[in-house]
Amino acid sequence: MALLETNKYSQGSVLGSVNPDLASERQTASFSVEKLMVLLDGGVERTRIRRAVVEAIESDPEFSRENEYFQSQNERYEAAVRKAVHLRKKMQEMGWTEDGPEYTYIYRALSGEIAFLLHRVFMRSITVLGSKKQIAKWIPLAVQYQLIGSYAQTELGHGTYLQGLETTAVFDVATQEFILNTPKISAMKWWPGDMGRTATHTMVFAQLYIHGKCYGVHPFIVQIRSLQDHSLCPGITAGDIGPKMNFEHTDNGYLMLQNVHVPRENMLNKFCEVQPDGTYVRQGSKKINYFTMTTVRISLISDQVLIPLMKACTIAIRYSVVRRQSKLKPGEEEAKILDYQTQQEKLLPQLAAAYAFHFINNYLQNLFDRGYRDIQKKNFDTLPELHAFSSGFKAMVTQYSTSAVEICLRACGGHGYSLLSGLPSLYTKILASCIYEGENTILLLQTARFLIKCFTAASTGQPVPPSVTYLAAVKPGNCPAKSKLDFLSPDTYTEAYQHMAARLVSSTAAKLQDLIQSGAKKHDAWNQCTVQLAQAAKAHCHYITVKNFAETVEKLETQAGIQKIIKHLCDLFALHGIFSNAGLFLHDGYISGAQMDMVTASYLDLLAVIRKDAVPLVDAFDFTDKSLNSALGSYDGQVYQRLYEWAQKSPTNKMSPAYERYLKPLLHNKLSKL
Amino acid sequence: MALLETNKYSQGSVLGSVNPDLASERQTASFSVEKLMVLLDGGVERTRIRRAVVEAIESDPEFSRENEYFQSQNERYEAAVRKAVHLRKKMQEMGWTEDGPEYTYIYRALSGEIAFLLHRVFMRSITVLGSKKQIAKWIPLAVQYQLIGSYAQTELGHGTYLQGLETTAVFDVATQEFILNTPKISAMKWWPGDMGRTATHTMVFAQLYIHGKCYGVHPFIVQIRSLQDHSLCPGITAGDIGPKMNFEHTDNGYLMLQNVHVPRENMLNKFCEVQPDGTYVRQGSKKINYFTMTTVRISLISDQVLIPLMKACTIAIRYSVVRRQSKLKPGEEEAKILDYQTQQEKLLPQLAAAYAFHFINNYLQNLFDRGYRDIQKKNFDTLPELHAFSSGFKAMVTQYSTSAVEICLRACGGHGYSLLSGLPSLYTKILASCIYEGENTILLLQTARFLIKCFTAASTGQPVPPSVTYLAAVKPGNCPAKSKLDFLSPDTYTEAYQHMAARLVSSTAAKLQDLIQSGAKKHDAWNQCTVQLAQAAKAHCHYITVKNFAETVEKLETQAGIQKIIKHLCDLFALHGIFSNAGLFLHDGYISGAQMDMVTASYLDLLAVIRKDAVPLVDAFDFTDKSLNSALGSYDGQVYQRLYEWAQKSPTNKMSPAYERYLKPLLHNKLSKL
Repeated sequence: MALLETNKYSQGSVLGSVNPDLASERQTASFSVEKLMVLLDGGVERTRIRRAVVEAIESDPEFSRENEYFQSQNERYEAAVRKAVHLRKKMQEMGWTEDGPEYTYIYRALSGEIAFLLHRVFMRSITVLGSKKQIAKWIPLAVQYQLIGSYAQTELGHGTYLQGLETTAVFDVATQEFILNTPKISAMKWWPGDMGRTATHTMVFAQLYIHGKCYGVHPFIVQIRSLQDHSLCPGITAGDIGPKMNFEHTDNGYLMLQNVHVPRENMLNKFCEVQPDGTYVRQGSKKINYFTMTTVRISLISDQVLIPLMKACTIAIRYSVVRRQSKLKPGEEEAKILDYQTQQEKLLPQLAAAYAFHFINNYLQNLFDRGYRDIQKKNFDTLPELHAFSSGFKAMVTQYSTSAVEICLRACGGHGYSLLSGLPSLYTKILASCIYEGENTILLLQTARFLIKCFTAASTGQPVPPSVTYLAAVKPGNCPAKSKLDFLSPDTYTEAYQHMAARLVSSTAAKLQDLIQSGAKKHDAWNQCTVQLAQAAKAHCHYITVKNFAETVEKLETQAGIQKIIKHLCDLFALHGIFSNAGLFLHDGYISGAQMDMVTASYLDLLAVIRKDAVPLVDAFDFTDKSLNSALGSYDGQVYQRLYEWAQKSPTNKMSPAYERYLKPLLHNKLSKL
Repeated sequence: MALLETNKYSQGSVLGSVNPDLASERQTASFSVEKLMVLLDGGVERTRIRRAVVEAIESDPEFSRENEYFQSQNERYEAAVRKAVHLRKKMQEMGWTEDGPEYTYIYRALSGEIAFLLHRVFMRSITVLGSKKQIAKWIPLAVQYQLIGSYAQTELGHGTYLQGLETTAVFDVATQEFILNTPKISAMKWWPGDMGRTATHTMVFAQLYIHGKCYGVHPFIVQIRSLQDHSLCPGITAGDIGPKMNFEHTDNGYLMLQNVHVPRENMLNKFCEVQPDGTYVRQGSKKINYFTMTTVRISLISDQVLIPLMKACTIAIRYSVVRRQSKLKPGEEEAKILDYQTQQEKLLPQLAAAYAFHFINNYLQNLFDRGYRDIQKKNFDTLPELHAFSSGFKAMVTQYSTSAVEICLRACGGHGYSLLSGLPSLYTKILASCIYEGENTILLLQTARFLIKCFTAASTGQPVPPSVTYLAAVKPGNCPAKSKLDFLSPDTYTEAYQHMAARLVSSTAAKLQDLIQSGAKKHDAWNQCTVQLAQAAKAHCHYITVKNFAETVEKLETQAGIQKIIKHLCDLFALHGIFSNAGLFLHDGYISGAQMDMVTASYLDLLAVIRKDAVPLVDAFDFTDKSLNSALGSYDGQVYQRLYEWAQKSPTNKMSPAYERYLKPLLHNKLSKL
């Protein structure tokens, strides 16, 4: 019967021809997908370059990700090294440079499955913290891969609290060397990427001791493996830290140092130097270094957070118009699951968030570019604000987006749980972004510290940075909305967010003040407020995101076709936030219960509106099938066919020794012979 | 220097001697850990049996999980089959039976890493749905493993909506056989456990056709592999569906049927039979079958949800008193991270939830035992309530617990992300519980349907089941609490939950009514209310959980030492819920903003109180180190030592071919020869 047809079917004749349930979604787009795509890319030329890079990478079989979901950690690592080496050739061949416009798209095109990323961090740290002489010596070697670098900061016992690092570097005046040691197990370097099996050198962060006095943490260039045969250098113990939730392609490593000598010149010394006699000299400003840390947090949002989030939305939304399950109306055919309000309520707010975060990312990039120009002019005034921005937004965006990807995964039911859907690996990868480059809670508290400081300053009439002037203007008043339509006014909801954020900051500042006045020590009082402080910091970032989204919509006036749909997304993002955090808005009566019902009504209405454009809205992200690497999310929507074809390639479909060893004796009653 | 000591250190001399930071936590317990443990187990005798089973399993090297985190999917599968076969011998040896008191602890002791679980479902479905003759024929074969069964219900295209299954079974009067087919790709069976590589037989659910008429879905026993050589039977295409987020030990399979003939006797026919002439006869009540489905949902809570949640709490809390990071007070040593309010606020509510769900699980088990006795007496009155309970609680508890495990994982920072922490596999496993045995949103809507029905009945004075009588008594009124201490009264918060749940049900019922009265079709109106309906169902279950927890505390009067700490946990669970869902309580002013501040104050105070007993509270779960299988969570707290020792065993520390192939030519400038 039909099986034979099915098997013919599986020869690939159907793949590529678009599932009618998906095709129909594209015919009714209320806007031009191409125009929106160009807007997201930032111009026609960038769209062209992005596509050219993706095409060049994806058409090269060396960069194939075809069997990624079947690979072991060892295989993933080997593939990443192979790709990294091949990329050097590819770049020469294509004429791409590290400064060129193509460069930013390479990582996206490779979906991050590549080695030597820490080699670049190694180089950057030399460029920023090294003297001209050090740069002249090491950078050419690194550029030519005469060595492979990594970056050994984190230890088993210390991540966020860098001052607590325990590795030591003792200066020996006699030999003019630093002697590096791992004095106890918790001091072992742990997690550095590219270090477990690859790097020949690493940047070791250690407590500097001179004549018995500690001068704090400094970076030292240390060779760990032979350039000849890759064997470990004397005094070095190093290896791979083993299996992780993801990043199997990276050899995160461990490192123990036993009396490892490095010459005095190996301490990066642009800002502080140890002179031959052991005199410690600090020179120049360290603020630029501080700035580097903050830019990393902002730069990760685009590659590590936005792209996985957009991919997850693409996969889940396409699947949700192909999957039909149960009936909405008796007697009709089964409904697309995206037609259920509950499915819309899962996915569409995540889609709106992807757009919200894309626009806030643009905003932050601009802010940091301006900040960088200021700093080059030796103007450091904006640094505290930039630091607060980078910490808070890194935390807020990674946390929100991680939840969003998880919602997408769960919204695809059983098939979302299969690695072949692509969703599990997106989730396990984005989850790490909540942890690396600063643990999110710590980061939120840094933003909170800035907000409390600004609030206090503003209260006493002192000037504060532009992004927080609103804290000075906490008015009592209530939300003026009188109908559900009033909540589609950006002014209405932006003011609600502003009021809410300002209230959280001011009430937490008041609590802090009260505690101190009633005799609590400052640090105890602070600790007792941290849950609320973190909440206030998140609220501040949420407010800025909504405000920026609304301003972005306004600027789209000239693009009428696109402005309308982006306005819907902005409304949805804002109202979803009020609906999901209702308590924060109801608390002081700024929004009343009756108004919250209006918010809910408008919010639910919007779901049905945006649902119509859901597929075009993810099509505009313009991910190729190869980059999604998902049986559920491909452009043609041939979900079941692809799941079946991919599953057949799984190594679990090779004959297992379990039959001969265990099943056969069991079934043949020969258990006693086992 | 110290490195040599470190290496001596790593010979295991330290493992087993308890880290002083963990030891000190145990010296100040406010209650007897042993007594609490016995309470959780349900009596001294059960504690004894549990420990004996765990000891017998864990001391047997055949059941070792030592290298689990390093194993491929194929290796995990082989180990699971080996263990399942070995378990048969072990049970004989130990004198354990499937009805004995030991049986429930075996799965726990094996942490679920075992094959043939679906074989048991295969047997249960025959026992429940099969005639006496069928039971007599098949059950002895299954018990003796003359065959291995599985359970093929879910298809590529259909999971939750069983009526939509597309596999067909056509009765052929001439041959007295059913002819089974997979008419299209979406009809392929997909996901059944034990079916990909193991089973010889499976229970196929297919649409029954007789003389061209469809009689709906029925179960058929189908042989899929030869009992002689395990080759696929004629007309059968089957295999493994490939990699998943977890459950690598299980061979979830696919199955296509092409004109597969089975005799008439292979349709399970206790409740419906096809007679030789093709007459279809339905006999007896199908309600008992309906009951079976609901019990499965309740029974999974204990093994699949509570245990992972309790393990995650154990790991994260032990780690949080061993991990020191940054300083709370300037000049002091670094603080245990559990001393930070934000860390307490992450972990302690999850610990309270683990206790809350343990007690609600007991309550549900009792309810279902009583229900079962009623049903045996042919009294089906409680079925709708039991069904609503099982659906709602399965959804609420799995969802809450999955989030809780994720919070535990993230709260351990980078080390939580390592598989060696044990947390990633707990998370990826518990996540599946949100999807299998009924997708959670669908389940919540089933509970909501029951609640709306009861609310409507109650409004018109009709009798309703005891658990929902509160819906009839929605009083306006406000919360009477006047100070933060008032919120430590179980009556106060239980009433707040009751009020909130009743409000959500009644307001959603009103919206539904309004929509229908203003002309919406019933199914459209329902769909437009589903987001709020799901919320109402969750609120109902949350209320019942809080109420049951408070009642449990009351019953502990005789155990003063334990009652106090359990009361704290109950308060914390309840106040955390109000704090985190503030909007639901503030909405109609039942709780005012000022009262919410009291809730927050009491909630934060409780964190500091429970923190003191946090380690004893997880010790009471009594997981062995082997069962936790976590470098972070072991009883001795030698976290860093264990991470290092385990990492060294990783297969990623074997020489990689990547060096010779890619790194060496790169470093030696021989790239062009590649």
